[in-house]
Amino acid sequence: MNVTPSTESSSSATAIQSRFLRACKRLPVDATPVWLMRQAGRYMEEYRALRTQHPILELIKQPDLAAEVTMQPIRAYNLDAAIIFADILPPLEGMGLNLEFIKGEGPVIHNPIRSRADVEALRLPDPTESLWFTLEAIKLVRKQLDPRGIPLIGFSGAPFTLASYAIEGGSSKNYLHTKGLMMSDAPTWHLLMEKLSEVVGNYLLAQAKAGAQALQFFDSWVGALSPADYREYILPHSRHAIDIARQGNVPIIHFGTNTSGMLNLIQEAGGDVIGVDWHIDLDTAWDSLKPETAVQGNLDPVTLLAPWPEIEKRTREILDRVKGRPGHIFNLGHGILPGTPVDNVRHLIDFVHEYTSIQH
Amino acid sequence: MNVTPSTESSSSATAIQSRFLRACKRLPVDATPVWLMRQAGRYMEEYRALRTQHPILELIKQPDLAAEVTMQPIRAYNLDAAIIFADILPPLEGMGLNLEFIKGEGPVIHNPIRSRADVEALRLPDPTESLWFTLEAIKLVRKQLDPRGIPLIGFSGAPFTLASYAIEGGSSKNYLHTKGLMMSDAPTWHLLMEKLSEVVGNYLLAQAKAGAQALQFFDSWVGALSPADYREYILPHSRHAIDIARQGNVPIIHFGTNTSGMLNLIQEAGGDVIGVDWHIDLDTAWDSLKPETAVQGNLDPVTLLAPWPEIEKRTREILDRVKGRPGHIFNLGHGILPGTPVDNVRHLIDFVHEYTSIQH
Repeated sequence: MNVTPSTESSSSATAIQSRFLRACKRLPVDATPVWLMRQAGRYMEEYRALRTQHPILELIKQPDLAAEVTMQPIRAYNLDAAIIFADILPPLEGMGLNLEFIKGEGPVIHNPIRSRADVEALRLPDPTESLWFTLEAIKLVRKQLDPRGIPLIGFSGAPFTLASYAIEGGSSKNYLHTKGLMMSDAPTWHLLMEKLSEVVGNYLLAQAKAGAQALQFFDSWVGALSPADYREYILPHSRHAIDIARQGNVPIIHFGTNTSGMLNLIQEAGGDVIGVDWHIDLDTAWDSLKPETAVQGNLDPVTLLAPWPEIEKRTREILDRVKGRPGHIFNLGHGILPGTPVDNVRHLIDFVHEYTSIQH
Repeated sequence: MNVTPSTESSSSATAIQSRFLRACKRLPVDATPVWLMRQAGRYMEEYRALRTQHPILELIKQPDLAAEVTMQPIRAYNLDAAIIFADILPPLEGMGLNLEFIKGEGPVIHNPIRSRADVEALRLPDPTESLWFTLEAIKLVRKQLDPRGIPLIGFSGAPFTLASYAIEGGSSKNYLHTKGLMMSDAPTWHLLMEKLSEVVGNYLLAQAKAGAQALQFFDSWVGALSPADYREYILPHSRHAIDIARQGNVPIIHFGTNTSGMLNLIQEAGGDVIGVDWHIDLDTAWDSLKPETAVQGNLDPVTLLAPWPEIEKRTREILDRVKGRPGHIFNLGHGILPGTPVDNVRHLIDFVHEYTSIQH
């Protein structure tokens, strides 16, 4: 199945009015926009029902199913943006890595990268061929979202985070192999990161062309590094990927965790919106960034498992720290955890809107 | 076996001249002092040999064995401080929790705390009875260290880090149970933390009385929290424990990881020296603290598995950022990893001394 890259405008007339896209540009909004990382997923009954019939990679690779999962939280709550249902790892498959999701263990790569030859063998596929299913899902979802005036976010794993999975062969605690390659063989490291940044940049650009109205660059695990290593071994490659994606003319959200000590470097690599996890006060984080920056965050995801008064208290504190500065997108500091009660999610979204509405 | 609390002065005449203790007080030093978290342990052949004969809790609970392990790295390298061989978890045993170290899994607590009744049942034992073995080991080690002029560091897990093990029953990724208790039952949380802070404070004070010339307060996992939660649920209890320990009149090192966004709060809780992991530039961290602060850190432990030129490059960068400010203790940002080559450890310690010596 082939997907012809779309040439349609990346933002529809309705969507440009959306709170989410306005906040990305730091324009005034009638209430703070909210979306939640992993807003579609295991905590929702509708999703679990689908998962009993389809393995996760099937949900991702069948565009109609990916579109359905993307829409589940949109139908359930008053969210201000949808995010395409996909995963950060499929881009590695097209490069030649064998990806499998193993129950109870998570993602596993059966042929991890360990040598120069492994890196040289990596292919740079055209995303319209290797990742056609996500691009097709984006088109399907846009048809359902546009009448609602809700914009769609596309995303990709960032080069470092993809490299860490590709090298470790799965998730990791200390990133021994990843940092080992980085510290012991800089030329091979940079070759790998160059290849990944091309793939990531082109994938993001293809998503914008397919209809994604914003793009999130997920560097989830980059906080494992020191700022000095980030600057030397990651930043140029993240910047290259983001520069390619910028040709899509849609806002880019640059997200990481445990980055409190290097948010300025994350920004230097690029992005219109900087994601902030919960390990730093949002205003402190914001003050460390350039004045024209929008920010996204920063509630601890565990909070959503607490009783409502505790959720409200912590949400209110974040919103009070923002004090009406333009360009805040409310979100968790990382993805929703399995076991999160859906009523808490609904209540949170409504509370953020109510508390920040112009009538407030 | 009973241990009479010692009334001897906490620092000997030789030790007061030590680089390490001078740096804790921000006095001039002839070279930057170095010690390394987990400097005794699995990466050393001598240690692995002992471990084939004794389970880890036996090494900790037999004072002569604990003293021997403490001395192994002191004999092998030019370290500026020893740290008593112990673990952060034994204080929980005296409170009534059943601790076991399971091969391949790490520490497990068989009766984790989940209810108010569990917290109420916790005992507050006298550390000279429940933890006599570590106090006795401190006395034995001091006899071997004093002739060398090398000071001894005692330590304890901090209340939050101990609470997280006590509640989760072992190590954790998301701290769901710990944060769950904290967010859903504040009175029980505070009762637990009050009990832990008493136990921790008294244990640290007992170590100073037994001869420890500095104390490290290990809040290894506190970076899992938001600054707001730290301020409300942790800080008062950490401060209480540190206030008790301060009666020992020895410098206190306050250590955590992933605390880049809340180092000021860590300092507010107390400590003469603030531990800084590798996720923030050391000078940036230092600038966020009060001017009279000493700091400890901040090399990524994975670095020690890299080729020497890479280790030297990163070590040099840290030392250059310090630029001769008084009060820097060189250390890793967390413990030495298993598999670290001993030659790299030796070379690192010598390099720090050489590079920072007054002749430099």
